[in-house]
Amino acid sequence: MKVLVLNCGSSSLKYQLIEMQGETVLAKGLVEKIGEGISILKYELQTGKELAIEEKIADHSQAIEMVLEILQDKSHGVIKNMDEINVVGHRVVHGGEKFSGSVLINNEVCKALEENIKLAPLHNPANLIGIKVSQRLMPDTPDVGVFDTAFHQSMSEESFLYAVPYAWYQENGVRRYGFHGTSHKYVSEKAAELINRDYNQLRIISCHLGNGASIAAINQGQVIDTSMGFTPLEGVAMGTRSGDLDPGIIPYIMKERNLTIEDIDSILNKESGVLGISSISNDFRDLSEAAKSGNKRAELALEIFCRRVKKYIGSYAALMGGIDVIIFTAGIGENAINVREKILSNMDYFGIELSSEKNNLRGQEAEISAANSRVKVYVIPTNEELVIAREAKKIIKNKIRKVIEDVLNS
Amino acid sequence: MKVLVLNCGSSSLKYQLIEMQGETVLAKGLVEKIGEGISILKYELQTGKELAIEEKIADHSQAIEMVLEILQDKSHGVIKNMDEINVVGHRVVHGGEKFSGSVLINNEVCKALEENIKLAPLHNPANLIGIKVSQRLMPDTPDVGVFDTAFHQSMSEESFLYAVPYAWYQENGVRRYGFHGTSHKYVSEKAAELINRDYNQLRIISCHLGNGASIAAINQGQVIDTSMGFTPLEGVAMGTRSGDLDPGIIPYIMKERNLTIEDIDSILNKESGVLGISSISNDFRDLSEAAKSGNKRAELALEIFCRRVKKYIGSYAALMGGIDVIIFTAGIGENAINVREKILSNMDYFGIELSSEKNNLRGQEAEISAANSRVKVYVIPTNEELVIAREAKKIIKNKIRKVIEDVLNS
Repeated sequence: MKVLVLNCGSSSLKYQLIEMQGETVLAKGLVEKIGEGISILKYELQTGKELAIEEKIADHSQAIEMVLEILQDKSHGVIKNMDEINVVGHRVVHGGEKFSGSVLINNEVCKALEENIKLAPLHNPANLIGIKVSQRLMPDTPDVGVFDTAFHQSMSEESFLYAVPYAWYQENGVRRYGFHGTSHKYVSEKAAELINRDYNQLRIISCHLGNGASIAAINQGQVIDTSMGFTPLEGVAMGTRSGDLDPGIIPYIMKERNLTIEDIDSILNKESGVLGISSISNDFRDLSEAAKSGNKRAELALEIFCRRVKKYIGSYAALMGGIDVIIFTAGIGENAINVREKILSNMDYFGIELSSEKNNLRGQEAEISAANSRVKVYVIPTNEELVIAREAKKIIKNKIRKVIEDVLNS
Repeated sequence: MKVLVLNCGSSSLKYQLIEMQGETVLAKGLVEKIGEGISILKYELQTGKELAIEEKIADHSQAIEMVLEILQDKSHGVIKNMDEINVVGHRVVHGGEKFSGSVLINNEVCKALEENIKLAPLHNPANLIGIKVSQRLMPDTPDVGVFDTAFHQSMSEESFLYAVPYAWYQENGVRRYGFHGTSHKYVSEKAAELINRDYNQLRIISCHLGNGASIAAINQGQVIDTSMGFTPLEGVAMGTRSGDLDPGIIPYIMKERNLTIEDIDSILNKESGVLGISSISNDFRDLSEAAKSGNKRAELALEIFCRRVKKYIGSYAALMGGIDVIIFTAGIGENAINVREKILSNMDYFGIELSSEKNNLRGQEAEISAANSRVKVYVIPTNEELVIAREAKKIIKNKIRKVIEDVLNS
């Protein structure tokens, strides 16, 4: 079975074509700057061979068409025709309360996704365009939606409700949804596999630390809390997002600096986080370099980031009554050795001890805790595309089984 | 030495006259609804005798005059004339970054307090009025300002900075200040005394849980973090305040419900917290009653409150590398047996074990942890007025010492 995974951002498209037998990535790539003048299509084969095409790509429809073309291209292609694609798996950011798992997409699902646009105005519209273009270009191929929020739907009310008027939840959907669910699910299941213990008996803290960062407390297989909330703005400080903030700051600063609602939303999402503190960069490599060269504000930004992650680990340990496994994943989690070390320093009270020797690695799956550490610590590179492909396969297989049963029973 | 302690709220005045020898409260009371038609002046003597006067009290000036009169009253008074008052100690909510300790008030201090009004628009103006009236009515009596924020000034930049544009800190003073400092200082010092250990060697978490609630991490005598931030809105859910919130909710809900900056500020401060969740009450006694009678939303409000406190305890344990002492104080902390129990349930991973027998008490100083609990847990009734009186005495004694030295050296 071949699954095409599509992840549409507001002006980008990530894609992978995966052969599920052996879970091999046949081809993958990225289209950037869609609709922004000159766009770039990157294409990489299993062999490592890479292509980059620069030209005007007006919209997601054209971008997906180009991807489908290159996948069938005589010299660079990996399939003969589109019929070889058995299913398309779409990343969808916001499933709201409606979706606690992946779904086969039909008109009803599309309608529900449209209703969720106001909850994720930056992401869901692009995700929906991807689905519609896919339906148009491959009308006979089923589409599956895999949601960033679904894995977190196991949270209970006392975890997902904010202490605001209850009507905001009932009438406006204000609650904690959580994001990066696909990633948290993948790395936490992987950790249980590596540690060779029952997933449903572990207390896991999963730290997805990328330009967007979120932490999840997974107790006996269920998310019981996560740091991103109603939007992906809450939680730890991020590349350009503020994370947790005294809500009283917002009315104050809007008046003080004469900001509109749009201004404040944009500043907190795009000009805050470690970029805001350092005034240098949202990139942790730049910050680490600058800190080494004596830049105090860059050092401060790194300290604040690590401190916030440390606090979340402590608070989730309190909720779960302890920790069995901590996982680091995503760009920073997989690669920033110093960040991992800082986060877990002085945590022996929690039974956490890092091995600085084992921790000295980037981007590879490994245990990094000391031999005598009660809590096992892992680096696990995330693979959201693979999870989306697996989910798509699962949904389709179930659907086919159901159809066969129905026919046999009729 | 006699100290008059004044605590001016926006429409209220709390007062105590304390004889510092033996720290005896000679008289104390409260004026409520100042400037709101019929006001009430309550007056209580050391003997337990109480008086209540209902009449129109136009402003804080008149209220303080009435308090001074009743203190000197022939039948109910405790002093013959105002000269017996050696110093007036004023509670001041916001000292900004200028004040890391109490100060003798002079024109320069008043000017600095005026500059801080924008940081505490509800509180500092009333505090300033109290100071000015006191200066006018007792021109020869020194005034001392004791700040809610001062104890927290030991926080380092990585603790007090938010991940927002650095200019907001530099130009608009946006940072974590923390509140309830006088209370956290009092109970944490008291705990060290009770446990008979050096204050500067302990890791203390102080939970001031009243209608306003804040938690402080005091490591080796220094506050290293606290849950209230730039304003008293941040942190745990409170009676009517939201506490922590995804900042992304604010722009969303302002648009959805067509709210102004003033509306959102008011709702988050006055209609949120456990009141917002339960839609019943901000009073924990009402909520406990309702929960017992099967009201799900009241139960939920209590659960959310306790969960948030638990998370803070975990996060501060992570920052300090452990906990030696946890303290509960203020209305809820001193009296809500079920809340303390819920907060500390399932915390043996942290070395915390409550004794349900010892925990069965209200409003009195006691250790409530089990004999084998590594972490000592205390209930310590707070006494902000006493701390203010002690601070006032200390400042005046230092001042007098300084004057004597100057005279002798001249």
